[in-house]
Amino acid sequence: MTQVFRIGIAGLGTVGVGVVKILQQHAAVVSSRAGIPVEITAVSARSPGKDRGVDLSGYEWSDDPLMLADDPRLDAVVELIGGADGVAYDLAKKTLLNGKVFITANKALVAHHGRELACLAEDNNTALLYEAAVAGGIPIIKALREGYAANDMRAVYGILNGTCNYILTAMRETGGAFDDILKEAQDKGYAESDPSFDIEGTDAAHKLCILSALSFGVQPDFEALGVQGITGIASEDIEAATALGYKIKLLGVARRLGDKISQSVSPCLVPEDSPIAAVEGVFNAVEVTGDFVDTGLLVGRGAGEGPTASSVVADIIDAARGIKLPAFGVPVRDLKTADWAGPQDIHSRFYLRLTVMDQTGVLAEVTALLRDYGVSMESVMQHGHDSDRPVALIMTTHEARQSDVEAACEKIAALPSVVAAPTVMRIESA
Amino acid sequence: MTQVFRIGIAGLGTVGVGVVKILQQHAAVVSSRAGIPVEITAVSARSPGKDRGVDLSGYEWSDDPLMLADDPRLDAVVELIGGADGVAYDLAKKTLLNGKVFITANKALVAHHGRELACLAEDNNTALLYEAAVAGGIPIIKALREGYAANDMRAVYGILNGTCNYILTAMRETGGAFDDILKEAQDKGYAESDPSFDIEGTDAAHKLCILSALSFGVQPDFEALGVQGITGIASEDIEAATALGYKIKLLGVARRLGDKISQSVSPCLVPEDSPIAAVEGVFNAVEVTGDFVDTGLLVGRGAGEGPTASSVVADIIDAARGIKLPAFGVPVRDLKTADWAGPQDIHSRFYLRLTVMDQTGVLAEVTALLRDYGVSMESVMQHGHDSDRPVALIMTTHEARQSDVEAACEKIAALPSVVAAPTVMRIESA
Repeated sequence: MTQVFRIGIAGLGTVGVGVVKILQQHAAVVSSRAGIPVEITAVSARSPGKDRGVDLSGYEWSDDPLMLADDPRLDAVVELIGGADGVAYDLAKKTLLNGKVFITANKALVAHHGRELACLAEDNNTALLYEAAVAGGIPIIKALREGYAANDMRAVYGILNGTCNYILTAMRETGGAFDDILKEAQDKGYAESDPSFDIEGTDAAHKLCILSALSFGVQPDFEALGVQGITGIASEDIEAATALGYKIKLLGVARRLGDKISQSVSPCLVPEDSPIAAVEGVFNAVEVTGDFVDTGLLVGRGAGEGPTASSVVADIIDAARGIKLPAFGVPVRDLKTADWAGPQDIHSRFYLRLTVMDQTGVLAEVTALLRDYGVSMESVMQHGHDSDRPVALIMTTHEARQSDVEAACEKIAALPSVVAAPTVMRIESA
Repeated sequence: MTQVFRIGIAGLGTVGVGVVKILQQHAAVVSSRAGIPVEITAVSARSPGKDRGVDLSGYEWSDDPLMLADDPRLDAVVELIGGADGVAYDLAKKTLLNGKVFITANKALVAHHGRELACLAEDNNTALLYEAAVAGGIPIIKALREGYAANDMRAVYGILNGTCNYILTAMRETGGAFDDILKEAQDKGYAESDPSFDIEGTDAAHKLCILSALSFGVQPDFEALGVQGITGIASEDIEAATALGYKIKLLGVARRLGDKISQSVSPCLVPEDSPIAAVEGVFNAVEVTGDFVDTGLLVGRGAGEGPTASSVVADIIDAARGIKLPAFGVPVRDLKTADWAGPQDIHSRFYLRLTVMDQTGVLAEVTALLRDYGVSMESVMQHGHDSDRPVALIMTTHEARQSDVEAACEKIAALPSVVAAPTVMRIESA
């Protein structure tokens, strides 16, 4: 056992600086909790001369992050570079091969290469830790890997992207349109200048992929995940959802369905008085259901310097304590290859918004098509009444098979009086 | 390293049976997560012949639970007997002295003897684990000891008693009186036949005492805790809180106030749209605030066979993995003796309900007394108007010192037109 736990940090953006701040400001309590002093020995980042608001003078600088993996003094490498491949991936492999702990906030890396990296960690008797990769400051990885470990998990779902939740919350509160609110979110720093990873659901999908692997003991499989973002959500959807007693949230949902597992990221309607509906703005939340624990909900900040760094340092402390658990809770050999459910396996209530010409008989045509696919309607509302311009027809269905709803909607889209492809969202009420 | 992790279970009530069920039904996945098979070797409980709905035939029975502590085959003893002293306490000491892991759901034991037992665990290179002692299925002990370990915690507070939360929720939903709802809760099995431990706040206080020690790195100190239960809550309070936009919750609150720490259990008003207000019925919730992570909220079932057993088995898995962390996150030598805050240190807004004779001048007398103690009023409502019978006067104050409010209320209680001692509750809006 070394007398000091030495780490190298690759990447000194917002989160990296947060990690340095915590380790500097809380050095005594971190040592006390870790059972051993934790020392930043080396760092690697672009622009060594840049003022980052913290004193970095005591740390060795390295131009090449990969050198950290080979530094014999280091016990762990903290990767805060990002990206599924490239330097981050190379650094992960090299670090683990050298028997050092690899700590990361990189969801894309773990979603795409989780199985391989978990294997490398096991083979080299070290650990792959990634608490900060999912839901920022919420200790959900530890909760699933350890806290809920006694359960056969039935479902895990949540609000996993703060940018999307901020946009959806603001659209509802202000009545504003998607594009305007996105612009505002960018101005406030809640959305990137290229927001596509967030608003198209990719970021949430990386996180769900990891949660799903941990919850169900299966190999992470990003390709198996159906992903739909929030770019198609119109103000009319928000209004209609409110009128129906729901809020729209971008949800990552993974659920055990008999021998299969469904996993998807898509905007869904949730009852306005449900606990998850109360999670607004940039906050994230994860709800789990296990066979013994029943329901658990964890809420917190999903991003930002402090919360994300808090999770990185929690991993550093675990590493310094010498804890080496399998990355996905069970050894890689016990990770199953999931049988992923498709739209034909998923039963749900649905929300549909059709844009139609306000002509006699449209509703009859639409309901006939739904009936042909065994989809029965629960409610219909028409927004506006204008014989010259298209109007919105909002419907909710009773429980139906998703593949049937999709097939019916394809036919509905082809009707002459239907102007655009229907907007379809699941109603998640459990 | 043994090839099997062997445990003994003392106490086979609801939770004990739940633990047996999980270990029987999830044997394979528990072994996979623990890295080693987990075996129940011996059990000890009253009425060995009683049908408990699980097959106990494979386990050795012991009439004396203390024998488990001396059984050389056992790696850990799970104590589900209860009580701060007596057998549970003796079993804890003996188990730890013998170098075995001690796992318990016993909040009274940890609140009263936590420091001593943590010491014994450290001195004998073993672990004291008590996830199930606080908030049933919520992994809050692990979250505070590990997940949020990077933070200097500023506050921890929560709904820690499901019986009280059920009663307060039902009083609000039905308008029923405390005694009637308590009776109903007893009929449904949500309250004990002797409910005093729950409704007088003692159970919540045991839990808060533990959370406070873990959050702030201080020695648990049950005696330092101000405790007030819910027996004084009248239907008028529930109605008035609703009218003011609040819900009443029995909250355990611990907060860092400069160099001091305040800790108390008492009914409080929380804004009706706050996340914690949405936690209803038998659910528990803990909200934490740390300097880096900001706010986190964990919600789940606070009691019951499945949720509590889920937490016990999570501890068993950790123990089987060989994880031996300090019981309160830091070694006992680093646990500080807290400087506990008193009513003179606590500033808050307050809710007051006075029962007064509806006579001219009462309000003037009351407000004059409050003014004399520097307490300024925010709102006043009078419920009813009857010159023959007492009426309720509901007030809220601006932020004031708790000791001033208490002193003023003592004087107010002595006024001839004031019929009963005022009901005083903090308004917790942060």
